Amino acid sequence: MNNCLCDNDMDSKCKVLLVGSGGVGTIASYALEYAGKTKVTSVLRSDYDRVLEKGFSINSCDYGNGLIFKPSNIVNSVEASKKHGPFEYVVIATKCLPEVTSMIDVIAPAITKDTAIVLVQNGIGIEMEALTKFPENVVLSGVSMIGSANMGGHIEHESPDMLRIGYFENNNISQSHQEAVCKRFVDLYQNDKNQCVYDEDVKFSRWRKLVYNACLNPVCALTGVDIGRLEIWGGVDSIIRKAMREVLAIAKSDGVVLPEDVIEFMIRSDDPVYYRPSMLVDADKRNLLEIEVILGNPVRIARKNKVDVPFLTIIYELLKIVQSRTMEEKGMITIPKERPVPK
Amino acid sequence: MNNCLCDNDMDSKCKVLLVGSGGVGTIASYALEYAGKTKVTSVLRSDYDRVLEKGFSINSCDYGNGLIFKPSNIVNSVEASKKHGPFEYVVIATKCLPEVTSMIDVIAPAITKDTAIVLVQNGIGIEMEALTKFPENVVLSGVSMIGSANMGGHIEHESPDMLRIGYFENNNISQSHQEAVCKRFVDLYQNDKNQCVYDEDVKFSRWRKLVYNACLNPVCALTGVDIGRLEIWGGVDSIIRKAMREVLAIAKSDGVVLPEDVIEFMIRSDDPVYYRPSMLVDADKRNLLEIEVILGNPVRIARKNKVDVPFLTIIYELLKIVQSRTMEEKGMITIPKERPVPK
Repeated sequence: MNNCLCDNDMDSKCKVLLVGSGGVGTIASYALEYAGKTKVTSVLRSDYDRVLEKGFSINSCDYGNGLIFKPSNIVNSVEASKKHGPFEYVVIATKCLPEVTSMIDVIAPAITKDTAIVLVQNGIGIEMEALTKFPENVVLSGVSMIGSANMGGHIEHESPDMLRIGYFENNNISQSHQEAVCKRFVDLYQNDKNQCVYDEDVKFSRWRKLVYNACLNPVCALTGVDIGRLEIWGGVDSIIRKAMREVLAIAKSDGVVLPEDVIEFMIRSDDPVYYRPSMLVDADKRNLLEIEVILGNPVRIARKNKVDVPFLTIIYELLKIVQSRTMEEKGMITIPKERPVPK
Repeated sequence: MNNCLCDNDMDSKCKVLLVGSGGVGTIASYALEYAGKTKVTSVLRSDYDRVLEKGFSINSCDYGNGLIFKPSNIVNSVEASKKHGPFEYVVIATKCLPEVTSMIDVIAPAITKDTAIVLVQNGIGIEMEALTKFPENVVLSGVSMIGSANMGGHIEHESPDMLRIGYFENNNISQSHQEAVCKRFVDLYQNDKNQCVYDEDVKFSRWRKLVYNACLNPVCALTGVDIGRLEIWGGVDSIIRKAMREVLAIAKSDGVVLPEDVIEFMIRSDDPVYYRPSMLVDADKRNLLEIEVILGNPVRIARKNKVDVPFLTIIYELLKIVQSRTMEEKGMITIPKERPVPK
């Protein structure tokens, strides 16, 4: 199988479709184009008009300040992207909100039998839908460590782009092929300014990152404080360490043994900044939160494997209510005018 | 001992000092004066000028709308109240925030050896400081069921005033005297519009009310939703019932057996209103919350008695962080400009 569609292409560059041009996705598209081997087609919604006209403006710790950037192709729907395909890779870099939108259904029109799907998203269990709906396609995992935000077409990229790319095991495809497709993406992405590496153990990387994401993100979001204040006021001791130990216990029940010292590593990873994690920023903006893939799926694995995780469970149940409140505020759900009560 | 100072007084009315003229306290002072046997001296702070000049304006489900009310004496400090004493009863109807203010220290100048202290406040363990600092005085418990709010001197009293008055057992004083002092206050307070009863079992009443207060109040405050939405979105099942069962377990370990059906009673007690409990209202206003007497003391009793209460513990730890955030916003605490981190 020749997986590399681009070799047949007129200009020999690899064609990549990118959906989700937030802080992470826009730097990903910049990285791919900067490395010189890729033509990125970017699907934009709210920023479409502005970026089509003026491009993204970017201040980047990796690439420099005052940059203006237009991906090779800019479209406003996946349907419209098809004229720039077929795509060797389709990168999803949106927030992962399976209870709201199936991103796999969104990208489906752009998927061919040779397309690899790249999920640059947080959480556990995010690959299930892609593997179910596209059982013959390679599905890649992107675990991103980056500080970057999109403010209406302007990107502030504050901490370096470090991306681990691996593959979610698909038993319908040979491991050697999955590995080759994965390593090719690493080759397309890495350049002299960023750090992109092949991830030998996707499961390990995802559980490891979850130690931070399932604990510091939700607790800061629920309490409305940054990580520095949380620590000063005792919350790191009273909540975070206990919740992180629960993540380690679930990971272990799922076959992943994380070293104990990952707890202190994650707690110290924002030193010495009064850092506001992304879920706190989203909560303050009354945006939807990635609670199902960050907390819901891990808690369900814990339940299945009979691991007792009271901290994660209760934090999850509280955030589910916050999520419903946000959905009501956004008009996505309604409640009866009269409160329903038992007869 | 003649506990009734008022009999020696020129006009024979009982002298009561009231501190904390919010929604609960103002209706209490109205009730006492309305019954005709009491002269209330009210200590006001933020409403002092307005009430001195124009009185409270009151819309009351018990007493009628469009009322104007001035307590017999209005002062702006406990020190200034002393000229209207000595007081037979000193009623504290403030929010109970022992980590912020010792109300017992505040009222101390007005306490004589014959003064009974009446705590019309929520929570568990609220009597400790009074019994320690005034070991020879009767300390009464007021458990209030009322819907009433003070908005800058205007009182909206929406659900009936039901008050249970008992005594916190004080081994230095005979039970018969404590009971007599307590029943006399019931007699002073009750009138043809309200329901004030003698509370035979203060401990039972306080744990019973805590089933509501330690669960619905904090969870609504943390999630930002009213009780109706909390129920529709699953939080009553996933959080409230479990937390309420924990309150029952702590109460049991403290010698109080509450009937199981109190859980459904409390859950249904606001039907059919999309009711916003007071702690949610306070959280929205960024006011301090009564977390220590509502959650902290019960959680500490659970710890002492080895009762496992994960829901209450985690909710308490989360709210402690929210409380610190509020204290910082109010300028009551500060954090270092540079985030302290380990060397």
